[in-house]
Amino acid sequence: MQALFRHPSLPLRPTRLVPFHITSAVPRSKVSPRFQQALRLFGNQQAAPRLGEDEMGKDKEEKKGGNFQLKVPKGTRDWVGDDVALRDSIFSKITDVFKRHGATSLDTPVFELRDILAGKYGEDSKLIYDLADQGGEICSLRYDLTVPLARYLAMNPSIQTFRRYQIAKVYRRDQPAMTKGRMREFYQCDIDIAGAYDPMIPDAEILRIVNEVFDGLGWEQYTIKINHRKILDGIFKVAGVPEPLIRSISSAVDKLDKISWEDVKKEMLEKGLQENVADTIGGYVKFKGGNDVIDLIKGDEKLFASEDIKAGVQDMELLFTYLKAFDAMDRISFDLSLARGLDYYTGVIYEVVTEGSAPPKNAAKGSEAAVGVGSVAAGGRYDQLVGMFSGKPIPCVGISFGVDRIISVVQAQKKVTAKAKDIDVFVMAMGGKGFDGMLIERMQIARQLWDAGIRTEYSYKVKPKFQAQFKAAEVANIPLAVILGEDELKDGKVKIKKLGVRDPKDPEKDGVLVPKEDLIPEVQKRLKDLANGVADLKIN
Amino acid sequence: MQALFRHPSLPLRPTRLVPFHITSAVPRSKVSPRFQQALRLFGNQQAAPRLGEDEMGKDKEEKKGGNFQLKVPKGTRDWVGDDVALRDSIFSKITDVFKRHGATSLDTPVFELRDILAGKYGEDSKLIYDLADQGGEICSLRYDLTVPLARYLAMNPSIQTFRRYQIAKVYRRDQPAMTKGRMREFYQCDIDIAGAYDPMIPDAEILRIVNEVFDGLGWEQYTIKINHRKILDGIFKVAGVPEPLIRSISSAVDKLDKISWEDVKKEMLEKGLQENVADTIGGYVKFKGGNDVIDLIKGDEKLFASEDIKAGVQDMELLFTYLKAFDAMDRISFDLSLARGLDYYTGVIYEVVTEGSAPPKNAAKGSEAAVGVGSVAAGGRYDQLVGMFSGKPIPCVGISFGVDRIISVVQAQKKVTAKAKDIDVFVMAMGGKGFDGMLIERMQIARQLWDAGIRTEYSYKVKPKFQAQFKAAEVANIPLAVILGEDELKDGKVKIKKLGVRDPKDPEKDGVLVPKEDLIPEVQKRLKDLANGVADLKIN
Repeated sequence: MQALFRHPSLPLRPTRLVPFHITSAVPRSKVSPRFQQALRLFGNQQAAPRLGEDEMGKDKEEKKGGNFQLKVPKGTRDWVGDDVALRDSIFSKITDVFKRHGATSLDTPVFELRDILAGKYGEDSKLIYDLADQGGEICSLRYDLTVPLARYLAMNPSIQTFRRYQIAKVYRRDQPAMTKGRMREFYQCDIDIAGAYDPMIPDAEILRIVNEVFDGLGWEQYTIKINHRKILDGIFKVAGVPEPLIRSISSAVDKLDKISWEDVKKEMLEKGLQENVADTIGGYVKFKGGNDVIDLIKGDEKLFASEDIKAGVQDMELLFTYLKAFDAMDRISFDLSLARGLDYYTGVIYEVVTEGSAPPKNAAKGSEAAVGVGSVAAGGRYDQLVGMFSGKPIPCVGISFGVDRIISVVQAQKKVTAKAKDIDVFVMAMGGKGFDGMLIERMQIARQLWDAGIRTEYSYKVKPKFQAQFKAAEVANIPLAVILGEDELKDGKVKIKKLGVRDPKDPEKDGVLVPKEDLIPEVQKRLKDLANGVADLKIN
Repeated sequence: MQALFRHPSLPLRPTRLVPFHITSAVPRSKVSPRFQQALRLFGNQQAAPRLGEDEMGKDKEEKKGGNFQLKVPKGTRDWVGDDVALRDSIFSKITDVFKRHGATSLDTPVFELRDILAGKYGEDSKLIYDLADQGGEICSLRYDLTVPLARYLAMNPSIQTFRRYQIAKVYRRDQPAMTKGRMREFYQCDIDIAGAYDPMIPDAEILRIVNEVFDGLGWEQYTIKINHRKILDGIFKVAGVPEPLIRSISSAVDKLDKISWEDVKKEMLEKGLQENVADTIGGYVKFKGGNDVIDLIKGDEKLFASEDIKAGVQDMELLFTYLKAFDAMDRISFDLSLARGLDYYTGVIYEVVTEGSAPPKNAAKGSEAAVGVGSVAAGGRYDQLVGMFSGKPIPCVGISFGVDRIISVVQAQKKVTAKAKDIDVFVMAMGGKGFDGMLIERMQIARQLWDAGIRTEYSYKVKPKFQAQFKAAEVANIPLAVILGEDELKDGKVKIKKLGVRDPKDPEKDGVLVPKEDLIPEVQKRLKDLANGVADLKIN
């Protein structure tokens, strides 16, 4: 089982908010050591898709156990060992923040009626996993957690306000060329506030939550890029982008954090924009900052003549006022180049980037390595989505945390650790000639410890060798041993021994004999001391 | 949002270990009041399939929000409010037990290659959900958590011993006639011990875990029915069942907890068994008890002549010895009629039934009401499944807890409650003429409380009415209010008020003014007192 604890921690793709490519075209030198380790380890076990390897070779290698492939589906993985322990501890940290803000959990089915998902994701709809038509309803796997929330609200019209969180896997059938280094099954961790409230108040709370989550994870370096759809679209209109082109020009601008302005401009021209229009846009989207960006827009007569932009600026001013009250302005960067892919945003939009998720500064322009692994969280306001289902819109604002990506950053920081297994006591027995292994006695002691809620293991052998029992306790990092000896037990005594004691002068180095009836309190006392000693090593 | 808290708690189908039918043919009087409530509530919202209703009428009614169905797929539901809170608290209780026994978590993909699932579930394979062939690999949704575990072990040959737990949803495309009252997406909660160990030691620990789980839930009434495949199959052979018929006769016997012996015998004869053979089986499978059943078998020369039966009895004697050491014999009923549906069991098998999951005693034989809602947990030993993948068998034993069913039993007992939302403080403001709502001040106070980890809400209105704020805090059962007044705040004071105070002599009935800088400790002090008062009402 120990093999599990050395399981590689895989830098997984984040939510698909921003594409994340690692291909065999990436010079290994450009890839982090941790990632290189992952690349190697992928080769040793098939618990996740290979990176940068051609399908044929892969499939051949993966044939095992007869005439079927012994592997998980491409783009999926098994979560085991320390990885899953760390993931769960991060989930519980994030959940605590969500609950602190009065959010309740919503757990929706993994698949929805296909009609529910249809027409929500624009071009990306081709990435939706469909269930086979086996008679009955036509269904697809959820693509995100936002559309299911909107479906739920539309289905339950009595609910007009709802603060909900959901942590669940979502499914995206990426093009083979895009799946390299990106998972098809991955976690999203969403919180959304639904309801018709006074302007920007819930929006501010979502951004405050972002601060609490990442501060709670001990991150010193992260930036919340923020923009407003009305301002962005207003800029496009003022610059002279024809109405029908706006969304597609917007998604071109969205690539500015991944490709150079030259390439973005090229795409715009290909999409039919006139060069001077593209250049006007380029002149605006380079601005980022705080209130100064607001002043800049207000100072620009052409821009501020637009009603959309006026409305957007009003929102941003209000938002910044509220964020100051929340002491949440430090991380904010008002970034006019932030566009966000999804169509359904109608107001403020944001994206969280951090060290290691931004592209390396030294990376060659346009090279694969220049592609950052994207944001660790992103979201915005979408006031029309619920109305698409029910005809009765409920304004919503929310954010989605890319848990897999957050985990790989946390693992790279090595700041927090979590143990896959945490056993307190190993019950063992020793004896001389004719020793019967004392299995029943070990079981009885284990039972007493379990009854006291103490995490306990013992050897599943009838007659285990003493050294083997010690070894087992050692590899599992179990801090205490309860050692049974025939003679001691006759005297009603058992030995408690601290394991891995280095100090030769430690009085407990060779263990302490205690009366059998005092076993539980004596063990609990020592566990308490140990816990106080290591508490600071744990994430929670 | 309060609507959520009155969300019906639905008696969901358990793991499909034992079929669970509720049809419109069931006289309402035969159905529990809670279930009747559920039947009614299903009618009011579409968060789950209707019970006993014809498809056409259903589909028509469910058309909403334009030309598509606004509903979740048949056999699925949304989990919300108190239901999900209770579920999570039960998950964490069960997980604590699993961890106490050194189990680690394994999280597998929701879909597997179809070849992996093929040929594992016998007739029930038709219930597997397939993903559409969109190019690339052919996949299906997992049907249980056992086959994915076996696939994982076969894929990672370095792992020869593994104690793993997994709590996840599984998917079964039941026939419409069977889906009534049964979910197509439901939770399983599995723990399994894999590895070649000395006989019956892990088996005993799994049964000890069953005791810890249900005792931990405070259940007084439950029975662990136990049998051994080698004994059962031995009986069939001794009785004269032709080898090829054994599994199908076994599944006939498996129905004895649901239908009468007469009907089981009828099925056996239809399956081609001679009447005298069926009667011989009937003579044996009626026995249940403890060691007395072992003595009975040993005393029966014909039975004990069978090597299979000898081996099975040896296992059971060893198991009972170990269970005594674990103080886990009280709940055991050695039941020769227990057969278990799945083919892959090779040794001891078991099933946990409880009050309310067993058929009502007074129910008419063969009537729908005589069908119990089945076991709340079931499992056994399967030593060949891993070998089916890798050619290298790893012996396994485990159990699957039917969480949905356990939840509905717990809800019916009303012993434990869990709140969907647990907010400590509601920050409100009041003022006279020209009162501006003090939004920024409320936000600043909320920020301080959040910083201290205190779960806090406030009105999202700029100028909320004072009564509306009180009402909001009341319906959410929030215990404390922090009340801001313009004059008090000028003096650097805020008011803390206990909400819902009945006692007119309570000194805090009208609230207490405290200096702003003492707010956090003053709030924490009161929350501590309140927590001590209600701790016993919570499940955890």
